[in-house]
Parts: sequence; structure tokens; C-alpha cells
Amino acid sequence: MTRFGGIEAGGTKFVCGVGTGPADLEKIVFPTTTPTETAARAIEFFRNKGIEQLGIASFGPVDLNPSSPTFGYITSTPKAGWRNFDIVGTMKRALDVDAAFDTDVNGSALAEAQWGAARGLTDALYLTVGTGIGGGAIVGGKLVHGLRHPEMGHIRIPHDRDTDPFAGCCPFHEDCLEGLASGKAMEVRWGCIAENLDAGHRGWDLEARYLALGLMNWVCTLSPQRMIIGGGVVKNPRLLPMVRQQLEELLNGYVPAPDVVEPGLGDNAGVLGAIALAMDSVESPSRPLQIVAETP
Amino acid sequence: MTRFGGIEAGGTKFVCGVGTGPADLEKIVFPTTTPTETAARAIEFFRNKGIEQLGIASFGPVDLNPSSPTFGYITSTPKAGWRNFDIVGTMKRALDVDAAFDTDVNGSALAEAQWGAARGLTDALYLTVGTGIGGGAIVGGKLVHGLRHPEMGHIRIPHDRDTDPFAGCCPFHEDCLEGLASGKAMEVRWGCIAENLDAGHRGWDLEARYLALGLMNWVCTLSPQRMIIGGGVVKNPRLLPMVRQQLEELLNGYVPAPDVVEPGLGDNAGVLGAIALAMDSVESPSRPLQIVAETP
Repeated sequence: MTRFGGIEAGGTKFVCGVGTGPADLEKIVFPTTTPTETAARAIEFFRNKGIEQLGIASFGPVDLNPSSPTFGYITSTPKAGWRNFDIVGTMKRALDVDAAFDTDVNGSALAEAQWGAARGLTDALYLTVGTGIGGGAIVGGKLVHGLRHPEMGHIRIPHDRDTDPFAGCCPFHEDCLEGLASGKAMEVRWGCIAENLDAGHRGWDLEARYLALGLMNWVCTLSPQRMIIGGGVVKNPRLLPMVRQQLEELLNGYVPAPDVVEPGLGDNAGVLGAIALAMDSVESPSRPLQIVAETP
Repeated sequence: MTRFGGIEAGGTKFVCGVGTGPADLEKIVFPTTTPTETAARAIEFFRNKGIEQLGIASFGPVDLNPSSPTFGYITSTPKAGWRNFDIVGTMKRALDVDAAFDTDVNGSALAEAQWGAARGLTDALYLTVGTGIGGGAIVGGKLVHGLRHPEMGHIRIPHDRDTDPFAGCCPFHEDCLEGLASGKAMEVRWGCIAENLDAGHRGWDLEARYLALGLMNWVCTLSPQRMIIGGGVVKNPRLLPMVRQQLEELLNGYVPAPDVVEPGLGDNAGVLGAIALAMDSVESPSRPLQIVAETP
């Protein structure tokens, strides 16, 4: 049996794992520092594990077009030091294996569809609300890629400056969803990280409102059967019930609100997503959608 | 050869046609009045045309789930008299033919992908800005359906009440995109229909801004290779160039802006979409995505 490895390359932490699903996952977690240092720790973990196929699910934006000279690179990220880092090339050369590549959230969406909360569904959204906000979607049973890849955290939503005078913290769009509702936005706005914000603080009502506005836009655009929200910010147990209620109010009966649930795979969605990408690439090695994507 | 008929059931006008594509289309256009009267005119057109398969591309929301007791109905529309009208059943019984059914904008997206501005693309958005706003999307070569169907006009976007104190005119969501930027919104806000608004009126700058905000959200969610905008409101030739510029400014280099173009099929996208649905249903009579959609 092929040995699969997966890397969840996140902006805050890297998770590396080997296995074939939730049952036999062996993993290691370490903080994301410089590209060189972080890649070296990943290489050290996989060395001597005998993996034959690697999957990398990375924070982005990333270049997913196999015919591009910068395929496998992290591209225009605001994250210091990581812009134009050849993550796929670095790992392939060091470990002498093939590597499948996608966004971290596409990986998680795939893993949730395979083993988690979106099992058996054809249309689902996976959203993570951590330092940043990212989303991956399964439409008609397949991951959405398109011209490049979704960057769902950067959608624009109503921002009532009377209620929330915070200008937003996205370096590209200021008060896009990520700029208003990411963990970083909460930290900058309230002066403490989301995990330490009192569970009854009014910041959570605002957070629920912003996330519901984002979800409303995805309901209207993708009509998912279920929406899964993971990430550090949603660990407050009050948050998801408030998000569901706000979403119902926003939709106002025009279309039904789909379920909004936590990831079935917990914190392992990301690394299992990377493994799912590796497994998927062995089953269907050509990725025709990607190949034609840049040649309209 | 099978004779195909198509109905573009719009909130303002019905377009009925027979043919197999843009080259041999024969069509008739008439205003949408009551369901009974409007259906009777459509039936009269098709009578004696010998059609063997019908496609209906309808304004919505509609029930697309073949296992639902209200399959083929227009459902929670705010349009007077049309709520819970069995459009598919009415036409099938009168003409004794099978009928494929989808949203008007899904039909148009399919027609544009088959014969128009999205030909050869795997990922494209079709938006119409008329009395209302609606969108259909092709993702990975297939129409997006999901749990129900997209209702893209109802996404929420930033609304700066200092610049635009108009409250919005959507009866469900007030200042959603449709509530702010549809032809009806322009008419209510400025006191004259969009077609009669001076091409240099500041209302067009506002319109371009709102449409660009909507497009930004779809770029971030679907990553389309191209976006097509049709409908009465975009007939002002100043509008699309302004939309493109605003979209570039909003994206701010984070991801590239895809082309924003007019429909390749002009005003025939809708009725050709209905015919494309009819043709498609003969080629692939089962619609597995729809059948599983309601049974997660």
C-alpha cells in the first residue's frame, strides 16, 4: 500500500502527518517561522517515514496552475518572508516524492467530505476562522478551483461604522470579511486575542453578525447543503448558535438556511486534507480543470 | 431530429422559442401578466410547432428537486400572483411533452457556455441586471445547483448611507445587492427608469460601485475565468468600463480580475438557455445532483 504524507501549511502553524485517514494518522505540530527553518522541520519529520506521495495544503494565495513557472509557490501573501516561496519544489527535492498541491481550505473541505461533517454531500462549504479567514467549497462533488482559487475571506460585507468604528485590518482591502472578523481583527480591535476575550463580551455578537453576513453570501452564491466552520475563533461555544440565528434573520425566509456545523475532524481537518490531496492525486493523477484553467 | 422548445420565463417578459441554437432560433416575446394569461400565450405559440422536448428557464425562487411535491413550481417570489405557480406542470399538461427546468440565469449561463461568451470555459459567471438581479455559475464545467439553487442577487454588500441614503427595495432583505442595484432600485431611487437616466448621471457611478462589489464577492468565492453581465441596466455603454475599473480597485492586486464582458448571445441568452436545458436533458436525462441534493 502506498504511504501518504500530508503537510498543512498554515500561517501560524505547520501540521505534518502520515497515514490514510483519521484512524491511522500520526502527526506533528510546530509553529510557522521562516520558510527555511519551517521546511527543514517538515523534512526532518518525513525523512525515513518511507512516504511515496505527499500532499501539501497551504495558506495562500498559491499558484496551482501546473503549466505556470511558479506552480507550487506561495505568491502574494502579506506574511513576511513567505512571498514567492517554492513550497512544493522545496519538499519534492528534499524528499524525492511527488506532491499534490492545493489551498489549506480546499484540503480541509476535501477531508471533511471524505471522512467528516460533509460526508456524502455534493455541495458543502468549509470555512476556517483563525488568524485569517479562508474557505473551500465542494460543488457538484468537486473542489472549486476556477481561474486561480477562491479567496473567500476577502469578500466584502456591510460594515456599520457607527456600531463598529474599527477600520479593518486587511492590508489589501481594509474592511473585507477577514479584515473585520478574523482572529487578527478581533485582537487588534479589542486588544486581546479571541481565546482570551470574555465569552459574554459584545465582540462576540459583532463576530457572529459578520460571519453570518459572509455565510449569507455563500448561501446565495453556492447553495451549499451544509456549512462547516472551524478555526481557533469558533472555539467559543456561544458563537455558532449566534451565527445560526443571525443567518436565519438575514435570509429572512427567502431561502432556507443550511446547517452550520463544526468540523467533523476537529483540528485534524487540515492535515487530513493534505493527505486526502495526496491520495486523490494517485487515484486521478491528471487535474484537467487546473490544466485548462488558464487557457480560456 | 428532435424539435426543441424553450421558455425564458422572466418577471417582466416571456420569451418563447424553437430551434437548436442561435442559427435557427425562431422566437416570440410578450409581457408577463397573470400566470394564466401568460401561460396561455406560451401554449398558443408552441401549439402545432411539433416540439418533442421543452426547456423552461424561470425567474425564481423555483423548486428544482424532482422528488419534491412542488417540483416545477415558482415558490416564494415577491411577484404578485406567481407564488406557488406550477409552471412546469401547466406547460407539460397543455403540450404533452417533457420539460427540463432550471432558473433563468442558470439557463443563460449554460447557453453562454455552449454558444456565447463563455464558450470553452470551465468556470464562468452569468449575471443579469434587469428588474431584479440574478446569477448563474458554471463551476468545473457544470451548473451550480446545490441544496436549492443560487440566489446571487441577494448577497449583502457594503452600503454607505452617507453617499446613498436610499434604504434599498428588496422586500426580503432591503439593501441586499438587488435591493440597491437592480433596475427597480434605480427607478425607485432616481424616480425614472434606468434606460431614461442620463448617461452621465451620478447614479451610474453608484451602480458601477455596487455591481463591482458583487463581482468582487464572486471572484473571491468562485474564481471564475470570465464574468458575463447582461440585462437592461447594462445597456448604458459607460457602465461596464466603470465596473471593470471599480473591480480592479477593489481587488487591489490581491487576485487578478477576470474579464467582465457582455453576453455573446445578446438578448437571446435566456431563451437559448431554455433550449440548451431541453437539449441537455435529452443527452443526460437523469440529474443526479438534483436528486441527491435534498437528502444529505
